[in-house]
Amino acid sequence: MSFKNFPMVSRVIFGRGSFNQLDEIIAPKRNGREAPFIFYVDDVFKGKSWLTSRIPLAYKDKIVYVSTEEEPKTSQIDELVESLILEFSERPSGIIGIGGGIVMDIAKAVSIMLTNEGETKDYQGWDLVKNPAIYHVGIPTISGTGAEVSRTTILTGPERKLGINSDFTPFDQVILDPELTKDVPKSQWFYTGMDCFVHCIESLNGSFLNAFSQSYGEKAFEICKEVFLDDKLSEKESQEKLMMASWHGGMSIAYSQVGVAHAMSYGLGFLLGVKHGIGNCIVFDHLEEFYPDGVALFKQMKTKHNIELPQGICKDLDDEELDIMINVALSLEPLWENAIGKNWKDKITPKKLKQLYLKM
Amino acid sequence: MSFKNFPMVSRVIFGRGSFNQLDEIIAPKRNGREAPFIFYVDDVFKGKSWLTSRIPLAYKDKIVYVSTEEEPKTSQIDELVESLILEFSERPSGIIGIGGGIVMDIAKAVSIMLTNEGETKDYQGWDLVKNPAIYHVGIPTISGTGAEVSRTTILTGPERKLGINSDFTPFDQVILDPELTKDVPKSQWFYTGMDCFVHCIESLNGSFLNAFSQSYGEKAFEICKEVFLDDKLSEKESQEKLMMASWHGGMSIAYSQVGVAHAMSYGLGFLLGVKHGIGNCIVFDHLEEFYPDGVALFKQMKTKHNIELPQGICKDLDDEELDIMINVALSLEPLWENAIGKNWKDKITPKKLKQLYLKM
Repeated sequence: MSFKNFPMVSRVIFGRGSFNQLDEIIAPKRNGREAPFIFYVDDVFKGKSWLTSRIPLAYKDKIVYVSTEEEPKTSQIDELVESLILEFSERPSGIIGIGGGIVMDIAKAVSIMLTNEGETKDYQGWDLVKNPAIYHVGIPTISGTGAEVSRTTILTGPERKLGINSDFTPFDQVILDPELTKDVPKSQWFYTGMDCFVHCIESLNGSFLNAFSQSYGEKAFEICKEVFLDDKLSEKESQEKLMMASWHGGMSIAYSQVGVAHAMSYGLGFLLGVKHGIGNCIVFDHLEEFYPDGVALFKQMKTKHNIELPQGICKDLDDEELDIMINVALSLEPLWENAIGKNWKDKITPKKLKQLYLKM
Repeated sequence: MSFKNFPMVSRVIFGRGSFNQLDEIIAPKRNGREAPFIFYVDDVFKGKSWLTSRIPLAYKDKIVYVSTEEEPKTSQIDELVESLILEFSERPSGIIGIGGGIVMDIAKAVSIMLTNEGETKDYQGWDLVKNPAIYHVGIPTISGTGAEVSRTTILTGPERKLGINSDFTPFDQVILDPELTKDVPKSQWFYTGMDCFVHCIESLNGSFLNAFSQSYGEKAFEICKEVFLDDKLSEKESQEKLMMASWHGGMSIAYSQVGVAHAMSYGLGFLLGVKHGIGNCIVFDHLEEFYPDGVALFKQMKTKHNIELPQGICKDLDDEELDIMINVALSLEPLWENAIGKNWKDKITPKKLKQLYLKM
């Protein structure tokens, strides 16, 4: 039996307004005038000077706005890396991601691909990265994905949607400033928060769980219930707590795995481009059979916050399209093994997944 | 407002039997044949081959057994460092502490003092360490102190009992193997577990608390109740959960502080050599006025586990001795400010502390 030696984020700062300390935090990491800091920023913040004016630019530092219409692709990472190599004479001093899961995953992937040869798609999988990434900082502006603390960066490649899972993936620094989440639209707040909730349900009900992951998962689960079902929290408290739920939910994956919802959501994402948060919700809504208590709570939360999920998104798909989704979902073997157990293939067949997808 | 940028343990491995992975974990950190790994091991394990035979020794590596009769002194660290410098031609490749809070604190302090000039006592305080410590690994064999995750190492110096609090103090690697705690005597299990419980009460009831520390402290508190008051856990589950409670309890101090019990326990430790775990218990038993709910739970736990605390340990002290303890306790200003608030000096006077100490 061998246990994973889990790499943690080296530094974390938490506090309302801690974003103001970004300059003093990154300054010692600057490798000279020719080695810029690159800030990938969710383009929803374009023109929002309350945030952008506080990004500390010096020398050749650059802000690159990133569209979050689509989830990140391996080809997009290759292009971003190439443009940095062409534009600057030296490697960047650091990569800073300011945004949600998409932007944080882009920051992680670019920082890895700046020091590792070849194409991004070749690193999708487990422990394929050879060289340490350059210094990278994650600054979440929405809570729930756990991307700020995880050792993966989820990318859509030509053949599959799969993470670069490696010891070099986690951020060197994370800034947790709950104020940055203040303008998140309600539906997005819900979908992304549910990513955390679904993590917890899948991790706590999985066969891979141990006491380490359980303790983090239980705490994240409790906070999700507090945030999404109780009425006791002020808006600020709710922002702060959900940021911690995301953090703990991400940590709970260290020695566990996600499960059915994530596997099937990846299928929706790959074929239809359905984004991860809403995709999880669409799938999870139909998983009573696997997670009865969790789905019941989810439905309560959905009702309480008047969330209407898209219906029938798979009903017009032909068999070939359904097969693509089913194959993406089935290829995520560790997720199924965690959710169902070693003999998962007895229960989870293409036919079974087709039935489930057709409900969605 | 400025927030602390908290350094985390870089790597953590959790699992029953994970101690067997020590060799593969430290091997890449070896700086050649002349640079040994030094293993500080609690001398309770002398002759316990189930543990010692699994310590991977090579080249000039050395096991140094450490007595835990007394808590570590700054002069002891100076001696340990000097003996390493005299014995080996090169700096060690790493320092590995295998034991409880005392041994882990020794490992942390030695790793710092190998790269920082002067005497250990000069580094007691906050952020006085200039150079990064050498690679150091913490392997707890008892749960509760949080020393495996904290940014301090508590030492008794000629003038005070105070930690070396620095960004270089936390371990580079922690191995959490619950099996290592299997032979802890019951009283020690209780006292050290209560260190965690008291941390949580002090942190959750303190004025410094924020959502980050609260989430960790609440989880540690819940696990302590499960371990010490419920009867639902198997022995192994209890070992695993208490190890996680210690970890989360240590993390909860990141943005908070301990309080009255720790301040007064440091006084007992400095004058009478009362060890930290039992010292906290002796003090906390008399703190209803500050922590009514926590003390009530503590008394339930004490009764349930048939723990008899020493009584009247201060009754024969003269005024001069009492003043020494009182001065040590009062010097820990952040602890009092956390516990009582900014105007703590109005409530906490030498006379008040004398009354409290005389009850103990």
